Amino acid sequence: MNQGRPAGGYAGKRVLITGGLGFMGLNLVTALRGMKADIRVLGRSWPPDPERSQQILEGVTFFKGDIRDAVLVEEAIAGSELIFHLAGKSGPAASNASPLEDLDVNARGMLTLLEACRQSNPMPKIVFPSSRLVYSPNLPLPVAETSPTVPLSIYGIHKLVAERYLLLYQRLYGLQASILRITNPYGPFQRREQHSYGIVNWFIHQAMNGRPLTIYGDGSQKRDYVHVDEVVQALLAAGLNDEANGRIFNVGSGDGVSFLQMAELIAAAVARGSLQYVDWPADAARVETGDFVPDVSMIQTCLGWKATTPLSTGINEVVARYRELDW
Amino acid sequence: MNQGRPAGGYAGKRVLITGGLGFMGLNLVTALRGMKADIRVLGRSWPPDPERSQQILEGVTFFKGDIRDAVLVEEAIAGSELIFHLAGKSGPAASNASPLEDLDVNARGMLTLLEACRQSNPMPKIVFPSSRLVYSPNLPLPVAETSPTVPLSIYGIHKLVAERYLLLYQRLYGLQASILRITNPYGPFQRREQHSYGIVNWFIHQAMNGRPLTIYGDGSQKRDYVHVDEVVQALLAAGLNDEANGRIFNVGSGDGVSFLQMAELIAAAVARGSLQYVDWPADAARVETGDFVPDVSMIQTCLGWKATTPLSTGINEVVARYRELDW
Repeated sequence: MNQGRPAGGYAGKRVLITGGLGFMGLNLVTALRGMKADIRVLGRSWPPDPERSQQILEGVTFFKGDIRDAVLVEEAIAGSELIFHLAGKSGPAASNASPLEDLDVNARGMLTLLEACRQSNPMPKIVFPSSRLVYSPNLPLPVAETSPTVPLSIYGIHKLVAERYLLLYQRLYGLQASILRITNPYGPFQRREQHSYGIVNWFIHQAMNGRPLTIYGDGSQKRDYVHVDEVVQALLAAGLNDEANGRIFNVGSGDGVSFLQMAELIAAAVARGSLQYVDWPADAARVETGDFVPDVSMIQTCLGWKATTPLSTGINEVVARYRELDW
Repeated sequence: MNQGRPAGGYAGKRVLITGGLGFMGLNLVTALRGMKADIRVLGRSWPPDPERSQQILEGVTFFKGDIRDAVLVEEAIAGSELIFHLAGKSGPAASNASPLEDLDVNARGMLTLLEACRQSNPMPKIVFPSSRLVYSPNLPLPVAETSPTVPLSIYGIHKLVAERYLLLYQRLYGLQASILRITNPYGPFQRREQHSYGIVNWFIHQAMNGRPLTIYGDGSQKRDYVHVDEVVQALLAAGLNDEANGRIFNVGSGDGVSFLQMAELIAAAVARGSLQYVDWPADAARVETGDFVPDVSMIQTCLGWKATTPLSTGINEVVARYRELDW
């Protein structure tokens, strides 16, 4: 699927995935199981939902609890060489509605993890999925990693602060960190109720249930959609490659696709579902970033990673998967 | 002292100063009393220390408590047209030693204030003293407001996050905010134990007590020292001028002075005290930013503010003041 897939290196490696029961986490665990890693997961709920993800977590050491629990975090990181820190709240609109909660989970959670890592010897490396939402809105396209970062949401601000923490701990204490600013991921294991975050999965789900796909405005806003399998490969590449240390990379397809095009691809793939145009709701309009297409050349240069799955292929795959699961 | 001093506009205006018992707060209260403002102060300790500041606070409405206390904050902001949000912990080395405490006071404190302001009708304007410590180290000089911001301390990161919150609340909710990135302020009311923050006052105090002034390394590191009276004038100008809304300004003298020069000026002014050279201590070396001189042209252009007090004049003034107070 891409050039940068690490050929080995994860076999027997002790890896902790915080938030390992989430969308990205379950996909990452699946990949790491295939590589025979020694997997630990820190997460809040067990058994995970949907039920079918249980089998994926067999053989995984599970730490049940919250990323803000310093004692649990210390226990979970013990002996881990690498941490994928995926735990956190997501969704820009939700973060603006509950900013103090977002601060607590996303900023204090990150700092709790870092303080625990600082006490470890040796210190584990951390790979962190940041977001395109750290960028200022309406930037010239494509958006490079050096672009201005005045986010439109508390969520974006706290992703930015987490990035800064990581770079600081690398500088002060030699903790290795790698940051991936991910665009709009889609694919298996995305929870259905997370429609504010994962629009592609949400639309597929809607179309498969014969419900209309709601387009805000004229649907011309450009986005970058990337399959979660490719995001997982980027995370894995960053985890093994020292070139990634202390770096921030955009992770996306690099292709701008309009919201409308995306919806049309889904309606075609499902062969069902109509488009419904509505005015922008206030909370969505407030966090609307304008067109966004990332410059993804840096990660290709440094890590050899490049997304190659066309959106139409990825959508067909997700639709086929959902049909298989009788969703 | 400068061109941008607001001629009036504060008379009868209800102004809240959080952290009004601190170094900058007491100087600001003094200035606002002279202008007959309706002053409210939110602070943690009463009576303030040193004792002589009590008289300055006569006629001021005092709210005793913590900026993280949402109920108290709501009470304190009621009816205020303008808030100078000075409450917070200071000191980069201290913040790295206690990052979670810094997060709680500086980030959660700011967010608690903003959430209270968002519920107010009309919303007060907020003027916020940020810091030169938001900037990345070792930048080309002079450093403009658009320069990279990867701070060397948790303190710097949380100043940055507070800035981002303010700009977000302005964009989302129309709350007016103005941000001043202040360099190294010195002057009356700086507490003696705050030597990690206010080096000029600390050195004056040391020299007056016949103790040596400790120079790290060769003392060649450049800094920008600015008299707190001038900082207060910048805060007042930003508070009244709509041109300041949604803007970030550097506030400093614009002159780079070496650490050694500063110490020599103090030894000469006090006519006492020797210089003592030591190797950089580890915690100071870790947060050392390299030479720093700000570009201060933007605030001059927008608000007509410019610092004009030479460092030697300012130092002599502080020395005279301390002698008067028999410190």
